[in-house]
Amino acid sequence: MSQERRTLRHAYGFEDVALVPGNITINPLQTDIDFDLGDLHFDTPVLASAIDAVVDVNFAIAMSKFGGLAVLNLEGLQTRYENADEHLIEIASASDDQVTPLMQKLYSQPIKENLVGDRIRAIKDGGGICAVSITPALTKQLYPIAVEAGMDVLVVQSTVTSARHVSKSEKGLVFSELREWVSVPIIVGNCVTYSAARALMETGITAVLVGVGPGAACTSREVLGVGVPQATATMDCAAARDDYFRDTGRYVPIITDGGIRAGGDICKSFACGADAVMLGSIMVQTAEAPGRGSHWGMANPHPGLPRGVRVKVNQNSTLEQTLFGPASVTDGTQNLMGALRTSMGVCGAHTLKEFRQIEMIIAPSIKTEGKQLQRAQGKS
Amino acid sequence: MSQERRTLRHAYGFEDVALVPGNITINPLQTDIDFDLGDLHFDTPVLASAIDAVVDVNFAIAMSKFGGLAVLNLEGLQTRYENADEHLIEIASASDDQVTPLMQKLYSQPIKENLVGDRIRAIKDGGGICAVSITPALTKQLYPIAVEAGMDVLVVQSTVTSARHVSKSEKGLVFSELREWVSVPIIVGNCVTYSAARALMETGITAVLVGVGPGAACTSREVLGVGVPQATATMDCAAARDDYFRDTGRYVPIITDGGIRAGGDICKSFACGADAVMLGSIMVQTAEAPGRGSHWGMANPHPGLPRGVRVKVNQNSTLEQTLFGPASVTDGTQNLMGALRTSMGVCGAHTLKEFRQIEMIIAPSIKTEGKQLQRAQGKS
Amino acid sequence: MSQERRTLRHAYGFEDVALVPGNITINPLQTDIDFDLGDLHFDTPVLASAIDAVVDVNFAIAMSKFGGLAVLNLEGLQTRYENADEHLIEIASASDDQVTPLMQKLYSQPIKENLVGDRIRAIKDGGGICAVSITPALTKQLYPIAVEAGMDVLVVQSTVTSARHVSKSEKGLVFSELREWVSVPIIVGNCVTYSAARALMETGITAVLVGVGPGAACTSREVLGVGVPQATATMDCAAARDDYFRDTGRYVPIITDGGIRAGGDICKSFACGADAVMLGSIMVQTAEAPGRGSHWGMANPHPGLPRGVRVKVNQNSTLEQTLFGPASVTDGTQNLMGALRTSMGVCGAHTLKEFRQIEMIIAPSIKTEGKQLQRAQGKS
Amino acid sequence: MSQERRTLRHAYGFEDVALVPGNITINPLQTDIDFDLGDLHFDTPVLASAIDAVVDVNFAIAMSKFGGLAVLNLEGLQTRYENADEHLIEIASASDDQVTPLMQKLYSQPIKENLVGDRIRAIKDGGGICAVSITPALTKQLYPIAVEAGMDVLVVQSTVTSARHVSKSEKGLVFSELREWVSVPIIVGNCVTYSAARALMETGITAVLVGVGPGAACTSREVLGVGVPQATATMDCAAARDDYFRDTGRYVPIITDGGIRAGGDICKSFACGADAVMLGSIMVQTAEAPGRGSHWGMANPHPGLPRGVRVKVNQNSTLEQTLFGPASVTDGTQNLMGALRTSMGVCGAHTLKEFRQIEMIIAPSIKTEGKQLQRAQGKS
Repeated sequence: MSQERRTLRHAYGFEDVALVPGNITINPLQTDIDFDLGDLHFDTPVLASAIDAVVDVNFAIAMSKFGGLAVLNLEGLQTRYENADEHLIEIASASDDQVTPLMQKLYSQPIKENLVGDRIRAIKDGGGICAVSITPALTKQLYPIAVEAGMDVLVVQSTVTSARHVSKSEKGLVFSELREWVSVPIIVGNCVTYSAARALMETGITAVLVGVGPGAACTSREVLGVGVPQATATMDCAAARDDYFRDTGRYVPIITDGGIRAGGDICKSFACGADAVMLGSIMVQTAEAPGRGSHWGMANPHPGLPRGVRVKVNQNSTLEQTLFGPASVTDGTQNLMGALRTSMGVCGAHTLKEFRQIEMIIAPSIKTEGKQLQRAQGKS
Repeated sequence: MSQERRTLRHAYGFEDVALVPGNITINPLQTDIDFDLGDLHFDTPVLASAIDAVVDVNFAIAMSKFGGLAVLNLEGLQTRYENADEHLIEIASASDDQVTPLMQKLYSQPIKENLVGDRIRAIKDGGGICAVSITPALTKQLYPIAVEAGMDVLVVQSTVTSARHVSKSEKGLVFSELREWVSVPIIVGNCVTYSAARALMETGITAVLVGVGPGAACTSREVLGVGVPQATATMDCAAARDDYFRDTGRYVPIITDGGIRAGGDICKSFACGADAVMLGSIMVQTAEAPGRGSHWGMANPHPGLPRGVRVKVNQNSTLEQTLFGPASVTDGTQNLMGALRTSMGVCGAHTLKEFRQIEMIIAPSIKTEGKQLQRAQGKS
Repeated sequence: MSQERRTLRHAYGFEDVALVPGNITINPLQTDIDFDLGDLHFDTPVLASAIDAVVDVNFAIAMSKFGGLAVLNLEGLQTRYENADEHLIEIASASDDQVTPLMQKLYSQPIKENLVGDRIRAIKDGGGICAVSITPALTKQLYPIAVEAGMDVLVVQSTVTSARHVSKSEKGLVFSELREWVSVPIIVGNCVTYSAARALMETGITAVLVGVGPGAACTSREVLGVGVPQATATMDCAAARDDYFRDTGRYVPIITDGGIRAGGDICKSFACGADAVMLGSIMVQTAEAPGRGSHWGMANPHPGLPRGVRVKVNQNSTLEQTLFGPASVTDGTQNLMGALRTSMGVCGAHTLKEFRQIEMIIAPSIKTEGKQLQRAQGKS
Repeated sequence: MSQERRTLRHAYGFEDVALVPGNITINPLQTDIDFDLGDLHFDTPVLASAIDAVVDVNFAIAMSKFGGLAVLNLEGLQTRYENADEHLIEIASASDDQVTPLMQKLYSQPIKENLVGDRIRAIKDGGGICAVSITPALTKQLYPIAVEAGMDVLVVQSTVTSARHVSKSEKGLVFSELREWVSVPIIVGNCVTYSAARALMETGITAVLVGVGPGAACTSREVLGVGVPQATATMDCAAARDDYFRDTGRYVPIITDGGIRAGGDICKSFACGADAVMLGSIMVQTAEAPGRGSHWGMANPHPGLPRGVRVKVNQNSTLEQTLFGPASVTDGTQNLMGALRTSMGVCGAHTLKEFRQIEMIIAPSIKTEGKQLQRAQGKS
């Protein structure tokens, strides 16, 4: 008799945990939040997601100006259409019923290799650091063009990317080979477990993206049943990074991607062990983002098994205000770096490394009935 | 002093768990999802529920064409009325207040034995594999007619079916006897525990249906207080199957029945140990289903203690699109087999047997406040 | 250093648990559900709550006819007003803002001792078994009148009643003394813990009421912070009963009072160990109840610290249909005894004593998103 | 391999716990609820929060009359504007979009030192005990004025206040020095952990405020990710107080501040170990509060990183009715001291010290579906 042989582990999302203030407090102005990726140094530990609603040439240039890094999707509308903007407008104004078929149609146009080079050069010409994203399946085809055009960072990304992809019909991308071919930093993802993250690190790549399922526009949980809440995923992959560093002396940063709704979640990402965060839906709210207040995930236009929803947000901030304030709203979507420094201050952490040592608790952010009622009244 | 002598075990539904991606990934096209039931082989490991809103003669034929198996309810409208369709329309258009008494009236008509034979022969004539469902109480009366008409699979099903039914007034159905009388595969259910599943297996029947309480149209939890969430029920019954196989060498597949809202739940069913899934509410959404967008459970028309609700869904897909895509929605109700293969791929499982070995976590699918808000905005 | 010195125990309500079907099933007609209270025998193990919206003379007579027991509140409207009905109508039709002050006013009228006797005699004359409820503070004053008028059962009840009440200004009611003075069965409550139940049992009283906080019209949790969910409370007090029986040979039944929304909760009450259940809000739904579809708790009209809300329900059933069916709704509020017998049948229990041995699990009855959505669609 | 190296502790809010009735009950009139702060004695263990919507000169005088203590915010509108009332009206009538920028503007006016003295003297002249609140950053500047004007209690308060604040640019406030300079009781906060509370106690201050994140108008959890639910925070800080008292013989009371919606939460605060409670949103509901039914937190007008929301409540009670009843509502917001005494009575506690020894359980106050439905019906 062996009933319920499997015991299942509890996993936690950012909404399930909270940070505990420290025994000392620190002046927020004296906290350090820098982020290093290979030889590149960033004052702002934030990447903008490789989604069409967030990153185009102008956005990438602006993001570099503010010390962060934007990732351009090389398989999105920007490389399929000379004038991508008109199709972004089309998507933003489509009805809910029509938007998925419309996206399936728009993304079925072939990628134009000349546009790949053009977009990269435009970012470089504008003074930006240029990161581009390719799926594993198209990496071998597109990376040489990107190298030639001068990309600074290569992101290889799909819903789930593992160190070893098994297929009889095609020879999969081998990251240790890619590492030989490309000299710029390579970021690979997404993964969510200790072992998968460690396996990717052992291929020699530069950094790892963490997150399967939590994004605002993602429906992997509903469609595939797959996903790990981000607090647990980040803690597990951070443990892999620390163990790998202890064993090899090489430090492979991890970047939390998805599930971040507000400044509080950014703070929790770093407290869970992230070296940087990748932001999608929050970035769509900036005036610089080309999405016109709509966004959607990379798997949303999939021809056979679309996963995701188009999400609409208010475009009520600038990129500068979103990153550095001053905030004019109190929901935590503006002055994200100010929030991070303040949170580090009240938790007594000078550096992001110290911030990882603070206590966290399981404390679901479900509001009390009274709180909700009062707020609802406040809205009327 | 012995306070709270009973310690209660936690049970989990599909909505409480999530699948964890693997260390390797696999090309979805190279996954195996076949299902064997006795000598019958199915390419598609899906059964359509024995409910009147889903299965009639035409639906059964279509389901066979797509590699799955539909179960015709021999105690439903199809065997009580020559023209069942007019009553299906009647139910679909009744008001909420009137629908339960209407169903109680419609289902109080006697079963016509000639219709039992007619329906089975019509399915066979149409080229379908014919599975029929009977309750334990009527099995002795109806199975000979079904055998004579050529049924391929016998399903004996009630809310809870055990290997031993105690009654002074009637001699209950004995499954080991039924096994002697009938040569086609016998599926029996429903059950939810290790011991009840194992006891059924020991009677010699062919497969076991798992699920009490979770169906979309079921109110057993409210009315009887009885039910076990499906992830735990499937894992427990799968353990019984594996132990029984180890002890006897005979493999008795288990079929998860109920609680499946979308592709993600199908993936979780198999990861929990199912050999096949039985689908009700998702099937109602296909153009081939006779329910006109309404469905209800088998216990709903009960004369004295009706249990269930009539549920309305959108009929917005074909059976082919539901099973194999391409999907035009992103809520996981279309391209179910594509979703299963993709999920196996990202979890690194070539076969359903390997898929049962992957890690699962407890990770309630409650959306974050921000996610819900944004999606709500997206709807407006 | 001794952080968090207190570890808190988890407590569960009926909505948190579910019953697990058994390895055998039993014909529901062959289950036993009788209930003994002292020398009184009841075919139906149900008491109707001592609340004005449920029990008046006619209701008490009807309840006896159906094998159960209704409790008349001797401190309610029936003993303050000759024509209580007009005030019941007044409360049912008051606005939400005005209803609490109105009740405070109506219940500030003095109790008329002649009405106490009249009501009891009317029940007896109608052929009913007469149970009456008094608070501990008024017990010494009112019980002699009730004895003289012929009451069959005395219920001494307040929000929380303990075996020892400490007060400098008044000599509290001593239950061992009351036991000497009164020969009919005495039911005392409410309590929720092993030790409090056991202490009450040791005073010699006949039965114990279990439940603080869970009632539909109760706000003790909000106002006083006090309450124990009913599944845990019932299990704990049942353990006290069993241990007290083992130690003394005297069996003191426990009656679960409050938190019962539907038949499923009744089934869970008995599976948790109850000997009988006391029903309030479900009883208000019967045509025989004088509440006109409104009800409220005993602490609601409290002059200084009212606790409770007026709750409105549909009055859509008869007492017979509620207890024995046939049901015309599927939410579990009709055919309660049929539901109990069916639940015992699927769990394999012949008697209520066997029913207490079945397995229960922790399985919150939170519906899946899909289920809720579909049902919502079904309602429109 | 060291997956998930951190194990996280579960923390609980008042909504997650409930009080368990005792084995004896006590006459509520014979309970003691006094509170001592240094040499000051209070009959009512309640402080009114230092927020502009609650405390002005008149409110402070009224609060003293009823045996409690109101805290005047020395950095709010009262010390920036001669006629603060007109700006309170302005805030109350601003739209949701405009209220945060408006507050940022109003609170950017300089503090007028003459008003600091005037307000304090007005409270003293009115016969009130005068407590004032200053942030750590302005304490050195403002406390001498307050001392001179005759303040009775000094509260040094910010979102998180620690015994040691690290800053290169400024010499932080040292509480052991402040203790030398000021002879009146000093209350410091807020903190939420055993170690932080103990560190504050060791500086010699008089009492500690407990609570980060739970307030009705607070968004620290969303913006900073920081916060500890109040039941756990209060229990932990109470343990620090008890251990510090055992080790040193000095008793430093703790005051629970935030997360209190109703009388039940006050009862839970004391059962968790509080010596007094600080109330904000409940106090706004009194006719004496100057907020016109709106309130907001101290961090809401922050120029760079505003945290909080303006909350609207009904102003439907007097201060006397709120504290001592009689209540005309049943949601637990009136007759708070009556509720506390009644709760102590049913739990068998004569004193607040005994009340801390009672059993508490984890019992989320999520209502059952039926309860919610019925109440919703009752509202219509």
